[in-house]
Order: sequence, then structure tokens, then C-alpha cells
Amino acid sequence: MVNETQHTCSASSSSKSDGGSSSGSESSKDSSRCSTPVLDAERHERLREKMRRRQDSGDRWFSLEFFPPRTANAAVNLISRFDRMGAGGPLFIDVTWHPAGDPGSDKETSSMIIANTAVNYCGLETILHMTCCNQTKDDITGHLQKAKRLGLKNIMALRGDPAGEEWEEEVDGFNYAVDLVKHIRNEFDDYFDICVAGYPKGHPEAESYEADLKHLKEKVLAGADFIITQLFFRSETFLKFMKDCQAIGITCPIIPGIFPIQGYHSLRQLVKLSKLEVPQEIKDVIEPIKDNDAAIRNYGIELAVSMCRELLDSGVVHGLHFYTLNREVATTEVLKRLGLWKEDPRRPLPWAVSAHPKRRVEDVRPIFWASRPKSYIYRTQEWDDFPNGRWGNSSSPAFGELKDYYLFYLKSKSPREELLKMWGEELTGEESVFEVFTCYITGEPNKNGHKVTCMPWNDDPLATETNLLKEQLEKVNRRGILTINSQPNINGKPSTDPIVGWGPSGGYVFQKAYLEFFTSSEIVTALLKVLKKYESRVNYHIVNVKGQNITNAPDLQPNAVTWGIFPGREIIQPTVVDPVSFLSWKDEAFALWIEQWAKLYEEESPSRMIIQYIHDNYYLVNLVDNDFPLENCLWQVVDDTFELLNSPQPEPSEVLR
Amino acid sequence: MVNETQHTCSASSSSKSDGGSSSGSESSKDSSRCSTPVLDAERHERLREKMRRRQDSGDRWFSLEFFPPRTANAAVNLISRFDRMGAGGPLFIDVTWHPAGDPGSDKETSSMIIANTAVNYCGLETILHMTCCNQTKDDITGHLQKAKRLGLKNIMALRGDPAGEEWEEEVDGFNYAVDLVKHIRNEFDDYFDICVAGYPKGHPEAESYEADLKHLKEKVLAGADFIITQLFFRSETFLKFMKDCQAIGITCPIIPGIFPIQGYHSLRQLVKLSKLEVPQEIKDVIEPIKDNDAAIRNYGIELAVSMCRELLDSGVVHGLHFYTLNREVATTEVLKRLGLWKEDPRRPLPWAVSAHPKRRVEDVRPIFWASRPKSYIYRTQEWDDFPNGRWGNSSSPAFGELKDYYLFYLKSKSPREELLKMWGEELTGEESVFEVFTCYITGEPNKNGHKVTCMPWNDDPLATETNLLKEQLEKVNRRGILTINSQPNINGKPSTDPIVGWGPSGGYVFQKAYLEFFTSSEIVTALLKVLKKYESRVNYHIVNVKGQNITNAPDLQPNAVTWGIFPGREIIQPTVVDPVSFLSWKDEAFALWIEQWAKLYEEESPSRMIIQYIHDNYYLVNLVDNDFPLENCLWQVVDDTFELLNSPQPEPSEVLR
Repeated sequence: MVNETQHTCSASSSSKSDGGSSSGSESSKDSSRCSTPVLDAERHERLREKMRRRQDSGDRWFSLEFFPPRTANAAVNLISRFDRMGAGGPLFIDVTWHPAGDPGSDKETSSMIIANTAVNYCGLETILHMTCCNQTKDDITGHLQKAKRLGLKNIMALRGDPAGEEWEEEVDGFNYAVDLVKHIRNEFDDYFDICVAGYPKGHPEAESYEADLKHLKEKVLAGADFIITQLFFRSETFLKFMKDCQAIGITCPIIPGIFPIQGYHSLRQLVKLSKLEVPQEIKDVIEPIKDNDAAIRNYGIELAVSMCRELLDSGVVHGLHFYTLNREVATTEVLKRLGLWKEDPRRPLPWAVSAHPKRRVEDVRPIFWASRPKSYIYRTQEWDDFPNGRWGNSSSPAFGELKDYYLFYLKSKSPREELLKMWGEELTGEESVFEVFTCYITGEPNKNGHKVTCMPWNDDPLATETNLLKEQLEKVNRRGILTINSQPNINGKPSTDPIVGWGPSGGYVFQKAYLEFFTSSEIVTALLKVLKKYESRVNYHIVNVKGQNITNAPDLQPNAVTWGIFPGREIIQPTVVDPVSFLSWKDEAFALWIEQWAKLYEEESPSRMIIQYIHDNYYLVNLVDNDFPLENCLWQVVDDTFELLNSPQPEPSEVLR
Repeated sequence: MVNETQHTCSASSSSKSDGGSSSGSESSKDSSRCSTPVLDAERHERLREKMRRRQDSGDRWFSLEFFPPRTANAAVNLISRFDRMGAGGPLFIDVTWHPAGDPGSDKETSSMIIANTAVNYCGLETILHMTCCNQTKDDITGHLQKAKRLGLKNIMALRGDPAGEEWEEEVDGFNYAVDLVKHIRNEFDDYFDICVAGYPKGHPEAESYEADLKHLKEKVLAGADFIITQLFFRSETFLKFMKDCQAIGITCPIIPGIFPIQGYHSLRQLVKLSKLEVPQEIKDVIEPIKDNDAAIRNYGIELAVSMCRELLDSGVVHGLHFYTLNREVATTEVLKRLGLWKEDPRRPLPWAVSAHPKRRVEDVRPIFWASRPKSYIYRTQEWDDFPNGRWGNSSSPAFGELKDYYLFYLKSKSPREELLKMWGEELTGEESVFEVFTCYITGEPNKNGHKVTCMPWNDDPLATETNLLKEQLEKVNRRGILTINSQPNINGKPSTDPIVGWGPSGGYVFQKAYLEFFTSSEIVTALLKVLKKYESRVNYHIVNVKGQNITNAPDLQPNAVTWGIFPGREIIQPTVVDPVSFLSWKDEAFALWIEQWAKLYEEESPSRMIIQYIHDNYYLVNLVDNDFPLENCLWQVVDDTFELLNSPQPEPSEVLR
């Protein structure tokens, strides 16, 4: 009777094995051979499947709405907000469609490009809003095709506000959101997940609440997958609306839109636009404190938290959608109080994954871009398929060139004045560069009292993991080993380790020690002599800006430096040191000296010439200690190098061989 | 000046990175992404490259010549001789071409099929001899096409002995070996490595020694890659020949053919065929002892060893080719005395690789066929490409059915009478089957005094690695957990470990504990109850002959159970537990009860019915303990199961849920 237990999956003896030789040979052509093990099931699911999974498992979730920025600088800020708020674990974000802002264009402030950046560069599941009124069928199809091409998978289908005062229905045109829903399903079949708007108080232009419910049902019948509601001020409003929806047969998920009141003016503006009425009890509190922003925000937070609690306690609400107004504090605070903000969400892989569908299988990357994942994604955006399981041999595809260092999503968050304060208004020699690197590592202020919180190669402060190596890194940077990337060796820590863990629980993660740095040719000459002693243990690649490349890598094969072993799964090896990619990274790493640092200074100025000298003469070095179960020997390698440099010099000829 | 060191591989900055986005997208279509890391460089090399590598590195090598067997039984024996002598590490073996024995046919005794078996099933680099005289161009092309199809890569091109007494040259026919060499190069370009014969004393039919040297040079110019010589009795003969060859511009490798004298009659016959003269000093020794086989063989060994030493000491000889006459003792002894026999050659992977070119990249297999690698190769012979890096998801190609259990290379080495003595002339119940399994594990004789040296699922005695588990295996087999496959957990032993090591040195190997067994449905019912306690730690698959399948494997994904980490390389994971393949293996594993065991007995006999009962009612179970760094918990699982079985029985309904 064992076959009655819950895990039974019956497979008849013959059906599995009578393919015989010819069918065996046929299916062996299937390229799915090297497909990625499903480490993170959500990565392979559509948004509506994720919602269902959360609902089934009882896990509550939240999502965040943003509008596109007005200026390029605001775009830079919004992208770093995506990164920060993305860390809290939203199920998705959505980006509104601003018909007046050329929303489908390639401008860095367009809805399309902001949504593209969220998906591809921030790895966020994203819904792009789209409105249809006053637009031609061709325009709309063009927008949808572009969205699909960029990897967007979800559309919020809206009517939008009519342009003129007097709006008339166009025959065969897009008059209502339902027309857009139908159009998407007609033209793109089931490719997009479609969201539509629900109005808990009824749409202001609807004949009646009941008529509006009927319109909503039409949108769902036309193919919408779920509903996000307009904001409301009382939980009863939503719960009644939900009940009414169910009563007329709407069965898809309905997500309440939450608007934490953040200020007097923004509330007034929103109320005007949405034609909603603010309940008297809220007005009574707000009016007396209307000039005290902090007080209103705190009240808004309290109000939102208690309403959200009521919604969640009802048992029928599984997720909450937040109208952020592009601000962080209030929404984050509400989420934290509700326990929905996940301070340290489990990483599926040690690097941030991109949400583009074609990158779903990607699970190996070269370690070089560890601190510049957006640049890596940019330089591989034209690839048709992505490495999984193995990086493969040296015939891996070419990287796109990185020419435009000022793309808003690749740009430093800090303005020029800030960078000058951190990296020095005036450099006096190579040593002042050493000091900048050292201050970045230690976190101590530089001699002008400014902390160095980013570098051309790292736009963020030191990773927690790198902190494990802080003491040694400080020592070597002071001496001119200018480190830009490193990881400690790890011999089987639990995959749930808060610092080095990744992947599902119950597994073990491993690392080989890695160190990457710029240094002078004098140090490289001594280093190479020392490395002979470590020949079988340490792999090295040493290259200068001209591409002169010295390595002991066997057959230019990649070296796996991070891997994980999980229950019931194949081995995952997410980072490799790939000798071929290193030469593409080298171009970028050297160029950053000039693009990000030298160009802060006047042409021909001494400071600029110092950076230029380093760029022209230093080597970029990476070292891997293959003996991961033993103590990391790379520090000893560096110590030996300085010892050799400081010892009485032998004949020059001896040094070179 | 660092760029002058020996490891420099110059790569200009621009050439590596200016592919730009479009070429990046192009080359990403290259399917070489998942190619295997070169763990064992020789696996990817042609025979002539292997020879050159050995010559360059100064490693000496040997090769072995065999002739095809006369009977099917002799073929079975020859194949196990290939396995045994292959363990000594020959660079290649060669199989002679017997025109009288239908050499290109599909008969199990044909030269073609023996060479095919050596390459595909024994994993030996193999040269197939081929003669050309008295054959049509079409016949020869047909043989060569077949050889290529079977994965043979090397041909020894010979003239062969004319059929009749009076031989006349045919115009445009194949009159000499050089014609065959030219034909191979014309029709197959550079596909085959070609070997030709050299005659240190000149070919008996040649006009002169000098004329023969000229013919040899013609063969090399026509495209031969290396030369193996006819046997000779003095090292000077060979060394002079080699010098003479070089003097007329023959630069390819010349390998001396060594003939250890093994008996009076075989020597006489060979001398007659080859028209060579035995030196007087050898005759003087042999004639007086011509009836003492052992004495002659010992003398032959001494003689061969001292001649080989002279050859190797000359510095110009790198490899030795042995005419084995299909015997093991003398050649093995000579090789051992010369230090060329590698008692425990390093395993490139934990399983025996096949030498077919299309399997060159293969580096992952399901663990189930660990003791039946030839059956695995047979059942996957029609695959067009082989898994490497990852096994992949459940859409892996279908396995061919194993219907012909009596293919000579799959057949048991032991005859029926032998098997009956081991497995019981008469079975009295399931317990007598338990006893057979237990005796196989312990190595103790059964109650009739016969050792059980093989089982239907294992044609060889217990693997050294399995010995690590012997005590526990004995205990569980006695109780009806009939084990057919197992491995201990290993948490990072050096890759050079004599028992569990594999791959290049300097690496670390790992294993998850694995246990596979047949057992009754009563035990399975208890086991499933116990496994609930181990749910997150132990993966299981439990299936009966009808295909009722119980598993907790996530999404039918494969579980890597053996992997290795090596310096400068990607991770290798050579064995997996694949839920889908398990159902194909299950068919084979259950069928072996009937095909190999039940059929030893009369139909309807009680012994046969006992085996049939087990076949029909038992389950095949595999268990993986995912927590490889901890002590193997699978023995505890089994203990808990028996404890549950022996405890007072709860209500039946409780057992089933």
C-alpha cells in the first residue's frame, strides 16, 4: 500500500523506457540538457504564479508603485531607491505611465526606460502601466512590442485621462481599459500578465457603483489576471468592495492600494485627482497640524499600519500595494511595523539576478563585475543565451564595449564635488592614491575629514563579506596593492550563513580566496618571482592596459571560485575567474581610472597626470588560492613580495627570470 | 619587463573586446558554452598528439597487440583481459585484421567488433588493423566508414598476405600498404590517425633493405603518422633501423615491436610466418628446454626486459609495443619489471570513460550503472551528445532498452555452473537469497563452501570503496535490505586518495552517502514512516517493477552525489541520482533477477519461483544523505526502520499515513 502515500508519482514502466534508440537520439538534441536547477522557483514563475504561490503558502507580500522621474538626476536617485527598497523584498514594483512625458521613448526619464531599468538592472519584477485613450492601435502595439523586447512581462492596462475637456468615444478606438486588455490578449496571446484597476468607491465617472463593478468584471473576462485598487481610507471600504466583486463572480486576486499620508499638499492633490473624499475623522486630525510635515507623516504611518493590520487580519488579503509617491521613509516604516519588510532576504545566488526572462537560467558570472553588476548586465545585454551550470571554455561570447559611462543606471550616485572630497581635491603623488584606497577599506575619514564611501570600481561601501578581510586589506593598500575585489575562502558554511550564505536552506557554500588589485610594475616583478613558489596552488592573471597578459591558468580554463551544494540538486557554481572575460573586464577597470577619477581634474593638472600615470603603468592582478580548505595563502604571497622587494637586490637579470 | 616571463600570452586590448554587441550576440549562439573542462587533456587528443605529449614530457609508455578470438566464449574472455590489462595504462591497444575471419562483419569475433568493444566498452584507445590486397575499393571504403561510425579513430594500414601462391599486381588496385594509406587520406582526409609497419631487417619480399626503407618513406609521405616495427631479437637491430630511417628523412615516431618469447611452438610459428631468423644464442638456450614451458617463458621475460632496457636507455625510444599473443602473464611481467605498468593509474573520473570521440565531453552519469558501465554505454550508444557539466532536467534523452542480456560484452564472465554454486543450486526461501547477498558482501564462502564473487548487478568483487561500508552492509543484507550499490560520504579528501580519489592532483573530492537496495513491501512501509523524520535531509526514490514510484525529490531534479574541486578549473560532478533515469535503471535492475538468476533454474521450480516472487513484489529503493559533512545517517534510517518493525504494531491505518 506504499503507493498511496502523498509523494506518489506514477510512471508506467514502459512509457519511460520504450523510447528505444531512435527516440533517444532525437531527444538528446534537446538543448535543455544544461538547464539550471531550480534553486529559486520564483525566478521561473510568472507574476500571477508567484501571487498564487504566496497565497497558497500563506506568506504575505507587498508591492511598490513609483512614477517616472522628471530629470536625469532624479532618475539616478530613483534607481538607487529601487535598489534600497528592492532589498526589502517586494513581490513587484510598478511604474506609472505619463502620457505627457513621452512614456514609450528611449529617454532616461520615460516610463518605458525606468521599467526596463527596474527589470534588467535592479532585478525587480515590474509592471509597466499603459494607458490607451487618445492613442492609435499602432502606437499601442509598438509600445507593447518594445516592452516585450526589453524583457517586461506585466502590463497594468488603464484608460488614462482624456486629453481634452469634452471627450467622445471613438468608434473602434480604445475608449476603455477593457479595449486595451482585449488588444493585448489578441496581439500577444498569453505573453503578458495583465493587471487592471479597481475602484472601491466606484470610478468617479461611472454611472453607479454597481455599473462600475460590471465594468471591472468585463475587464477580468477580457483577460486581466489581477486587480489593484485605487486608494481608500477605511478597511471596510475595501472589504466590502472585495465581497461585492466576489458576489458578481470576480475570482482573481484583488490587491488593496495603500496610500500612507505623507503630507498635507500631496494628500490634497491626490484627492483632487482621484475625486475621493477624505473622511471627516482624518480631516479633523490633519487640518490643525497641516504645517507640521513630520507630524502628518507620523500620523499617516499610524493610520496606514492600523488599516493594513485590519486588512491582513481579515484573512482575505494576502498582499498590499503601496503608493510610495517615490518616497522611501513612510512606506518602509509601515512595512517594517507590519513585519513585511525582510531586512536580509535570502539571496538565491551570491550576486543580484536580473529579471529579464532570457536571463532566467543564468547562474554563472565572472567574479570581476561583482561590484558592478549593472555594468555586467549592460555589457551582456545582447547575448541570446546565458551561461548556466558551467561558464564554458574560452569561446564564450564577446562582451559589449562600455563606452557610455554616463548612462544613468551606471553612473555614480555621488556628484562631482562629493567625489572630489572623497578622492582628493588635489593629489600629490601615488601615495595619496594609496591613502584613498586605504580610507575606503578602513571607513576612517581622509585627512580632510571626509569618509570615502565609494570608489570608481565600487559604488557602495565595503561588502560585509569583505569586512572579514579588512585588517589585511588595509595593510596591503597602504603599501600600494590597490585592491578592488576580494573574497575570503570558505570551506562549507551553511547556506543560511548571514554573511556568505546564499541559495536554499540545508545547503553548504564554498569559496576559494580571491584578491584583485592594481599595482606597480616593480611590485609585479617581485610578485611573479614569489608566485613561482606557489605555482601549483595559486592561479594568477596579470595584465596591463596594453593587454600584456601573464597567467598560469591551464588552457585558459575558467576557475570556479564560489559554489554551493544543496539537498537534492546539482552543484551550483555562480562565480568563476575566467581568463578570457578578464581581458574585457581589464578594459573597463582601467578605463574607470580615467572616466571616473582623472576627469574630475583639469586637463594637464598634476592630479590628473598622477591618475593617468597609474592608468598607463600599473598592472591589474588577480590571484586565486585553490586550496580552499587551508588557510588563505594570498596574504603570505603579498608579504613574501614585499620581503623580496626590501631585501638586498640581486643582479637585475636574476629578477627578470 | 614582466611581459618577458614564460607564461606570457599576448592579447591586444582591442582584439578581445571590440566584438561589440552584435558579434556578442552572434557568438553566444555557440553551443560550446557547456563544454567540459579539460580534466584529462589526453581524452581530447588524437593518438599522435598523445604520443607527442608523452615524448615531450619524457613519460615512457607501452601498447598492446591482440588478435580477434575464434569463439564467442573466447571473446568474453578477451574483453575481460582488455579490462585487466587496460588497468596497467597502455597508451593504446591494437587489434589485428584476419581476412579469413570475416573481419569487417558484425560477428562478435570479428576484428571490427572486437575493436569497437575495446573503444566503446573498455575505453581503450584502439588501432584497428586493415589489409588491402585482394579487396575492392568499395569493400575497403565500407570497412573504413563502419570503423568511423563505431568511433574508431586509428588504422594500421597493411598490405596483407596475398591469397594465392602466385600474386600479381592489379592495375589501379590495392597492391601495397601505401595504396591503402593514400586511399584513407583521399577518402577520409585527416580523420584517421594512420600507422604503418616497419621492418627492421627489411620486408622479406623487398628487393633489399634499402629498397624497403624507401617504401617505408613512401608510406609516411602518403600520410602515415607513425610506424610500428615487426618484432626483432636484438636492440641493435632496431636502433640501426631507426638511424637509417632518420638518415633518409623519416621523422615520425617509430615504435619498436617487442615479442616476449612465451613458448617453443609459438616462437617457431611466428618465425615461420615472419621469415625472421632466430639468433643462434637464443636458439642455444631454448632448444635444450623446449618442453619446459615455464622455463622458456621465464627466459623470454628476461630477454625482453633486458632488450627493452637497452632500447629505453638509448634515449631515442619513448614507447614499446608488445605482441601479446592474447596472453597476459609474460607481457605484464615484463612491463612490471620495466616499471611501465601503472598499478593504480589515476582515474580521470570516478567511472571508466569510453573512448568514442562523441563521448569525449561526457563527464556526468547516473550513479545507478556504477557497477554496469558497459550496460550504460550500450543503452546510451544512440545518443548524439552527452551530458557534461550538468545532467540537466527531467527531459534527458531516453535510454535504449536492454533486451539482449547475452551480448558478449555484457555477459557474465562466469559460466552457469559457477553461478549456481555461488547463488545456490536450490533456494529454500527469501532467506537463502539474503544469504547470497551477505556472502557477496563479506567475501566468506556460502554454506556449500563457495565464495560469491559476483552478483547479477555486479560482475566483479566488491569495490575497495564499498569495503569501507562492509560491516554495515553485512548487517543490513542479513535482514533483507539487499544492497546493490552504495558509497560512503566524503567531505573533501585529496583527489590523490588511493580509494576515493579521481581527477588531477591538487584537487579535493566529495561524496554524498548513497545506498541502493531491493527490499520487501513490509520493510518499505516502515521505511517510509521513518523517512518522514529525515524529510529535509534524505532524498529517496522507491519503485516496484510495475513502476509505482514514491519520491521526495524536488521537481524531479537530479542530485549530485560525487563532485570534485580542482585548481584552476570549473566544478566537476561526475555522478548524479537522477529520478528520471532511475525508472530506466529500475527496468534493468528488476530484469536482472530473472535474466541472470531465475533462468538458472527449471521453469516452475521452487528456486525459480522464489526469485520470481522477489522480482514481482520487492521494491527498489535508493537513499541519499544530503548532509555530507555529517556522519552518514542512512544506517540510522535502516536501524530505525527495523526498530519500528519490531515494536508493537499500531493500528494498520496509522502505518499507512
